[in-house]
Amino acid sequence: MQQLTPPTRVLMGPGPSPVPASVLNALSKPTVGHLDPYFLQVMDEVREMLRQAFNTKNRLTFPMSGTGSAGMETCFVNLVEPGARVLVGVNGVFGTRMVEVAKRCGAEVTPCEQTWGRALSKEQLLKAADGKPFDILAVVHAETSTGVLQDLAPMREAANELGALLLVDAVTSLGGSHIDLDEHGVDAVYSGTQKCLSCPPGLAPISFSKNAEERLAARKQPVQSWYLDLSLIASYWGQARAYHHTAPINMMYGLHEALRLTLDEGLEDRVARHQRHSGALRAGLEAMGLTLVVPEDERLPQLTSVSIPEGVDDAKVRAQLLRDFGLEIGGGLGPLKGKTWRIGLMGAGATRNHVVTCLSSLYATLTAQGFSPKDEPLSAVADAYERSRPK
Amino acid sequence: MQQLTPPTRVLMGPGPSPVPASVLNALSKPTVGHLDPYFLQVMDEVREMLRQAFNTKNRLTFPMSGTGSAGMETCFVNLVEPGARVLVGVNGVFGTRMVEVAKRCGAEVTPCEQTWGRALSKEQLLKAADGKPFDILAVVHAETSTGVLQDLAPMREAANELGALLLVDAVTSLGGSHIDLDEHGVDAVYSGTQKCLSCPPGLAPISFSKNAEERLAARKQPVQSWYLDLSLIASYWGQARAYHHTAPINMMYGLHEALRLTLDEGLEDRVARHQRHSGALRAGLEAMGLTLVVPEDERLPQLTSVSIPEGVDDAKVRAQLLRDFGLEIGGGLGPLKGKTWRIGLMGAGATRNHVVTCLSSLYATLTAQGFSPKDEPLSAVADAYERSRPK
Repeated sequence: MQQLTPPTRVLMGPGPSPVPASVLNALSKPTVGHLDPYFLQVMDEVREMLRQAFNTKNRLTFPMSGTGSAGMETCFVNLVEPGARVLVGVNGVFGTRMVEVAKRCGAEVTPCEQTWGRALSKEQLLKAADGKPFDILAVVHAETSTGVLQDLAPMREAANELGALLLVDAVTSLGGSHIDLDEHGVDAVYSGTQKCLSCPPGLAPISFSKNAEERLAARKQPVQSWYLDLSLIASYWGQARAYHHTAPINMMYGLHEALRLTLDEGLEDRVARHQRHSGALRAGLEAMGLTLVVPEDERLPQLTSVSIPEGVDDAKVRAQLLRDFGLEIGGGLGPLKGKTWRIGLMGAGATRNHVVTCLSSLYATLTAQGFSPKDEPLSAVADAYERSRPK
Repeated sequence: MQQLTPPTRVLMGPGPSPVPASVLNALSKPTVGHLDPYFLQVMDEVREMLRQAFNTKNRLTFPMSGTGSAGMETCFVNLVEPGARVLVGVNGVFGTRMVEVAKRCGAEVTPCEQTWGRALSKEQLLKAADGKPFDILAVVHAETSTGVLQDLAPMREAANELGALLLVDAVTSLGGSHIDLDEHGVDAVYSGTQKCLSCPPGLAPISFSKNAEERLAARKQPVQSWYLDLSLIASYWGQARAYHHTAPINMMYGLHEALRLTLDEGLEDRVARHQRHSGALRAGLEAMGLTLVVPEDERLPQLTSVSIPEGVDDAKVRAQLLRDFGLEIGGGLGPLKGKTWRIGLMGAGATRNHVVTCLSSLYATLTAQGFSPKDEPLSAVADAYERSRPK
């Protein structure tokens, strides 16, 4: 068996996103113990930076030792007891997954179905609720499977009318779209590291509001997952520093550096950067005659879904992009499999070089696969950048 | 916020263990996508090396995306349905934890209590079983909280008499003690990366036998954890490569390198190395007048529990070891808290330099804290090495 020599890819799929050199470097720093005073300080700093990134004062804010899906499970296992009533907005893979996870916690789940590629409205949710109260309303802020950005304000209003806690999937929004847990009244949120934070996958930042903490404290039954039980894990992150499990030390170094870079850039500037470059990418895609899946006012800057043109072979195009250009873009999922591509501009990947690399590679590949682009994309891209130039 | 500059520690606690430079370096290699053909090959190689390290042909063999405790939970959530009868050998923290985890899966748990610091016998287990059949017998191969190595052959015999699957915690034994899943008839096993494999924490290797797979396939209810559901995860590791969650790419690079180093050394040589250095450590500790907790024939080479001498302050000694020598050793847990120290010689940490560093630091610190060691330890250490010199 040989040592690994991974290729350098241009990561423009749905995540993992490109990882800055200083984050990769942080991963390789000397491992210390999980109760070492030095590591406890790293934990404190990570928690404080996460609170800033989430715009919250929530006490229960830290990364779980698993990937984004472990974050989703954390929110449900801690807040759901058998028989709890959960309303889930379903307009993509991750809403669908929330339904499944909530059911496995014993919840009575009501899905509110919306077309994949569209956002949810307050009215749709209230209609699905049918006048009944709910314990939890769960929605996806940034649907990575379709590229939809969900406005959270009407979701909070719906939750208020239902008497529900608001649970939000922010896997692809943290560090890329504006999110303010305290302002939006989000009660439970989970995210991942490998999207707009540009850290490798492996940790799942979560945060619980005071109301969610109270719900947790009032449980009649223990949390069904010992590994994800926040009442136990909070005591490792709190004053007691009680041993629960051995934290993923080096991944925490990586997240520390990724958060440092994120906050150093500034959250607002970072959000604006994602918007600017995705605007240019879309202009280029449309110039080539490609169709975007999501209506303009519901588009997620960091992930753009584009329809695969009639007669073009999904797998062949993506294989050629990877082979000839080292470029990864994502395929569609679920009902969109074979019908869409998903192009990510996340974190360190939201740059002009990424936009141009993607468009030029796609232009060459589509042409080679028999599709004739309408126009070359570069002039539309230049125009878009000119229009969006920061004042 | 500044970039991290972690100190270089001498890691001789219960894990994490010292990480070789090439493993740290592997962590920092370029991130690729979780469906990238290159990464799929990394997964295949990791799985093949894990099978070798576990001595098994089990199809279901791979690392879970969490730490060792997630591995424990994986075994229980997949094999237990509500009402399942589980007999657990409890002689330390991790047996205690298995009881808790099994209960949260709805199991009817019968604990078989044994003094902390002692191994379990077949007779004790059968007595606790009281003539009743069981679905699962769960035991800890290497109890990290006490330093006991459990002989697995009588455990398999007990499981046979009970009609039970044998579930084994191998967190601290994999790569340090002989383990042969197929020979020992182990049906489900979990481990961690941060012990005798000398990789940072963050992944949990597991393996399920054919019998365990059949139990999983015959379930009436879905696995309560979506994140740890092996029937779903197996399809990402199998031909389908179906997306389940985004694998922790860089951690997998690290595990690949750690397994490569482990197998390159050879499992038998590695086990012998752990025995040789722990023999020398013990000789030195006893020369200084310290008492070992575990009887000689039940001792775990990679973790030695030593009684804290009367009048010596646990916290002060460990703080001075860390401050003056950068040396981490572990404190006792549960009923042994404040009563024992736990000294690890795991993976890359099982070397003569570690033994001598630990003994000399402990000698100086104990003396400074008012305890008079019986003898200097170095001559006993030299004798032990002489006696154990490989032929």
